[in-house]
Amino acid sequence: MDNFSPSDPLFESRVRLSFSRQQLMASLGAVMTVVMPGEVHIELPYHTAWTQQNGYVHAGVITSIADSACGYAAYSLMPADCNVLSVEFKVNLLRPAKGELFIGIGRVIKPGRTLTVCSAEVMAVEQGERKLIALMQATMTAV
Amino acid sequence: MDNFSPSDPLFESRVRLSFSRQQLMASLGAVMTVVMPGEVHIELPYHTAWTQQNGYVHAGVITSIADSACGYAAYSLMPADCNVLSVEFKVNLLRPAKGELFIGIGRVIKPGRTLTVCSAEVMAVEQGERKLIALMQATMTAV
Amino acid sequence: MDNFSPSDPLFESRVRLSFSRQQLMASLGAVMTVVMPGEVHIELPYHTAWTQQNGYVHAGVITSIADSACGYAAYSLMPADCNVLSVEFKVNLLRPAKGELFIGIGRVIKPGRTLTVCSAEVMAVEQGERKLIALMQATMTAV
Amino acid sequence: MDNFSPSDPLFESRVRLSFSRQQLMASLGAVMTVVMPGEVHIELPYHTAWTQQNGYVHAGVITSIADSACGYAAYSLMPADCNVLSVEFKVNLLRPAKGELFIGIGRVIKPGRTLTVCSAEVMAVEQGERKLIALMQATMTAV
Repeated sequence: MDNFSPSDPLFESRVRLSFSRQQLMASLGAVMTVVMPGEVHIELPYHTAWTQQNGYVHAGVITSIADSACGYAAYSLMPADCNVLSVEFKVNLLRPAKGELFIGIGRVIKPGRTLTVCSAEVMAVEQGERKLIALMQATMTAV
Repeated sequence: MDNFSPSDPLFESRVRLSFSRQQLMASLGAVMTVVMPGEVHIELPYHTAWTQQNGYVHAGVITSIADSACGYAAYSLMPADCNVLSVEFKVNLLRPAKGELFIGIGRVIKPGRTLTVCSAEVMAVEQGERKLIALMQATMTAV
Repeated sequence: MDNFSPSDPLFESRVRLSFSRQQLMASLGAVMTVVMPGEVHIELPYHTAWTQQNGYVHAGVITSIADSACGYAAYSLMPADCNVLSVEFKVNLLRPAKGELFIGIGRVIKPGRTLTVCSAEVMAVEQGERKLIALMQATMTAV
Repeated sequence: MDNFSPSDPLFESRVRLSFSRQQLMASLGAVMTVVMPGEVHIELPYHTAWTQQNGYVHAGVITSIADSACGYAAYSLMPADCNVLSVEFKVNLLRPAKGELFIGIGRVIKPGRTLTVCSAEVMAVEQGERKLIALMQATMTAV
């Protein structure tokens, strides 16, 4: 993986400020932990309110934190005066989303002037054990 | 598109019962409207609680209703004694998710004993006008 | 589906000329049949040279005609002075690629200034019967 | 990444034998180099016969080697008496496919009894420099 240097030295505060405006993240109880150039982590505690029919967290919620993690990983490398939007993503669901905590780790694979390709892993933490439960491959755009 | 005949004559009540157990759908305020063999519609009214940084509905929420619509479209054709899980999906986001109402329409493209391929369209309704805002191509599995 | 009006009245000759420069298509024996605004068909006769280990046509070859069909469907709506490149695609393989002939039908779902979202169906024709064997959802870009 | 132990001790010869039956690979001039448990490399020299309209290798050909690399990475961990088929894949094209040689590296992310999730990187080697040009996320099945 490349070692990215952000064009905006204030990228971290810019990323955290934009994240704080995503009302979905606050509604879900998701928090942004790590913010590095080209890599962002988002954590989501389990809550029954976000489950599907078996009591696992719904794939759409797992996607939400993976998408935000990818989007902000991309945004960390973008110029200061732009916005980030998701173009598309693909998610493979590897294991049921059960556990106390879910961690979405988004990483830039290939930055670009308009399009940035990212990938995200989502881990579930269950009784201290960490398992990979979902994998995203995504395209983000600067607008 | 094929005209599907469900193996379980009670498919509609089975689909609606399982949907009612998806706590995420109730938490979001999403309702299941149409249930036909191989096709399911889910509607979600706009709420600021589900937005991203620009006030549009977050891509993960749009994905949630598309995923449930695909999953239940697939489930409508499955035998009575099984469960449905998402294997993978890909979403293209075509326009910003703004509007008063969002309608996810999931359709079975190719049913199978273990794997069912579906697609979903998500429409935004804004001042009476309907626009396609997202497209999903997904694989569901009977377990 | 929308009814698209191409910005370049000479779109058909432009599309066919560019296709004729794709040496892969000639090498495979693929031909472009239908060219309409936002829709292109490509046909590929079966040949053992393109098979995988079971004698079916390899998924990469099926993807090749789907990708070119999507790319040229997008290109048909682009301005005269640009080039088209694939950004990403996702393919679901629905049935084994067996038959005498394969037809890739690419259609624009949402045209855009830089990004165009397309979908493609690939049909196999076996003893006169036509079956859907693959489905693509793709993003193309004008450069 | 996990360290996988194959259930079939003769996995390497089984993988190489099946690959030798993929006539597409021989037609393209692609060779299998590395075969390890859960990881397979396939190399393809550049040839004008496989190009798109700009003289780059066509995305469908890049997909072909990525798909075979993923399929055989999955197959290396499968029981001796089964076959492998692609269920679906998604490819992001990161840079134009130009260079003397293309290397597809497929890796198993999550093996399973019926479904195995893989990812592949495709590198282009141009004047000795190696660049990542494509990324695949795929599902393979044992049949």
